[in-house]
Amino acid sequence: MAPVINAKTVFNEIPTGYPVPGKTTVYDTSETIDLENEPLHGGFLAKTLIIAIDPFLRNRMNIQQGTDKPGFEFGRPLSAFGLAKILRSEDPSVKAGDVIRGGQIPFQQYFVRNDATGFEILKDNHSLPWSLWVGVLGMPGHTAYVGWKEHARAKKGETIFVSAAAGSVGSLILQFAKRDGLKVIASAGSDDKVAWLRELGADVAFNYKTESTAEVLKREGPLDIYFDNVGGETLDLALENAAPRGSRFLECGMISNYNEENPYRLKNALFIIKKEIAINGFFFGSLLPKWGADFEREMPPLVKEGAIKFQEDAVRGLEHAGQSLADVQRGTVLGKRVVIVADH
Amino acid sequence: MAPVINAKTVFNEIPTGYPVPGKTTVYDTSETIDLENEPLHGGFLAKTLIIAIDPFLRNRMNIQQGTDKPGFEFGRPLSAFGLAKILRSEDPSVKAGDVIRGGQIPFQQYFVRNDATGFEILKDNHSLPWSLWVGVLGMPGHTAYVGWKEHARAKKGETIFVSAAAGSVGSLILQFAKRDGLKVIASAGSDDKVAWLRELGADVAFNYKTESTAEVLKREGPLDIYFDNVGGETLDLALENAAPRGSRFLECGMISNYNEENPYRLKNALFIIKKEIAINGFFFGSLLPKWGADFEREMPPLVKEGAIKFQEDAVRGLEHAGQSLADVQRGTVLGKRVVIVADH
Repeated sequence: MAPVINAKTVFNEIPTGYPVPGKTTVYDTSETIDLENEPLHGGFLAKTLIIAIDPFLRNRMNIQQGTDKPGFEFGRPLSAFGLAKILRSEDPSVKAGDVIRGGQIPFQQYFVRNDATGFEILKDNHSLPWSLWVGVLGMPGHTAYVGWKEHARAKKGETIFVSAAAGSVGSLILQFAKRDGLKVIASAGSDDKVAWLRELGADVAFNYKTESTAEVLKREGPLDIYFDNVGGETLDLALENAAPRGSRFLECGMISNYNEENPYRLKNALFIIKKEIAINGFFFGSLLPKWGADFEREMPPLVKEGAIKFQEDAVRGLEHAGQSLADVQRGTVLGKRVVIVADH
Repeated sequence: MAPVINAKTVFNEIPTGYPVPGKTTVYDTSETIDLENEPLHGGFLAKTLIIAIDPFLRNRMNIQQGTDKPGFEFGRPLSAFGLAKILRSEDPSVKAGDVIRGGQIPFQQYFVRNDATGFEILKDNHSLPWSLWVGVLGMPGHTAYVGWKEHARAKKGETIFVSAAAGSVGSLILQFAKRDGLKVIASAGSDDKVAWLRELGADVAFNYKTESTAEVLKREGPLDIYFDNVGGETLDLALENAAPRGSRFLECGMISNYNEENPYRLKNALFIIKKEIAINGFFFGSLLPKWGADFEREMPPLVKEGAIKFQEDAVRGLEHAGQSLADVQRGTVLGKRVVIVADH
């Protein structure tokens, strides 16, 4: 078979604010690949199916800061959580037809790897779309689940504030909190999103662009738990409105910090002491060994029976990946943004 | 007996920076008391012996911010941890001669209370000076001990950074950390203090005024534990130099924030997530019910045999209380500042 185009989206420039498709990332169709004859050197050839566009990818572009997570390399395809299908393999640990999941799926249609470490084979999709395995049943699902299990110490009747609650992590936290009997205050950045927060059962849902977070928290707090996806001024306000003695702050993301050259600087750190707050930054990967089996047992059935809801915003074609990176930073996406690179 | 002078130091004005004796606090000898005939209304009359001048008292002067701890009242004596001796009592729970300890001992020579709640009777001084019961065996000792027991999760061979390590809390943390086999980086604000840190066994001791905290932490870190007494830029640097995955920050004090109209604002909060840091603000009072019995069993013997060292800087006379409040904020005191109001 003749070589085929092997399109890719490469990292080109560190953004100074939001990512700009064509500038900070470039879609490039110049590469080709001979799928039947590309040498594997004991590894495998895979076809990228789905790429998850997560907000933290922006952080991996800030390579000048020396991120702890692997940064992107100029001129090379970006990578993200995603799924791929094995086309050919000389590696005994994977075989043609296997669907694999990993955090380093390249923004490229086809790729060869000589090491299957870091990928897992998904055995059973429970008759649900594969894309859910990068969303509610993938990294965001894992993040919400392990954070909640490890750090929330939720007690019935407590009050939680979830920022960016319409996001793929936040919307799960909202639902976990309701299932545990908490009063949920949830914020999002559009009226559409707020309407969805109400559908999910938020007791107080508000659009932080049109309603003052400070006033809502003052009226509806104090907060026993704050699940932070945004950082910055919202975190400052949560510190100010934390319940004294023993509130918990789960630090999951600080999207407000990722796109600013001069991020907002916290002024309310003293409340950490005054209110005896426990703050835990966490990363799902560190906690998944502890909670992964519980997740696999508990979550797929809940999703399948509709007891846990989610939203997905899929775009089709790798050429839209660059724009998607900007969209999730701007908060214009309702639900989990995934790029369907190939259907099967 | 004729009435005697009942001198007091009253709160007069919220400081805009450091406290200023004669301005933010005023020493006043105009009040008198008849020790034999002052009516007790079922309560007790006590003579103030010792007042501890702790840095956090500055924070109680910021009453416009609505502190969680009781703020001071204009025109009324300040109060602090201290000891007093019961002179007369109509309250069956205390009797003449008892030495009581509490967090609300007034800056006044004599005082009447109708409720002994909040005071404890010190039964046994283990033949040690009473003043230690507001220092190494009092609130600072309790603070260091319960914070360490509850939040440090120290493991042999780990690295800890202690700021304000010559203070009455920091110097105990340094010693607890050495006893647990940690490498200790300790900072203080004078060469005298640094010399003392070395005596206490600090592996790395430095004067933050003449040596760069950033460089020391970069060279000697990363930090598994940061015990924070100062907040501000030092906290930012500790966040930057935290060990990835599971470092612990014990937030005990933020003296750098207390005296500034525009306190330093944190820029490194994102590291809380990137490095999965656990931050715990704590207050000894909340943890003492859990750890107090261990403290009483363990600490007095260690102090008595010299296994735990401490420094005390006693001044004599309530008229020096106002200056002492400023001294502990400026960091010019070597050891625990106490005001001896009366010897017995």
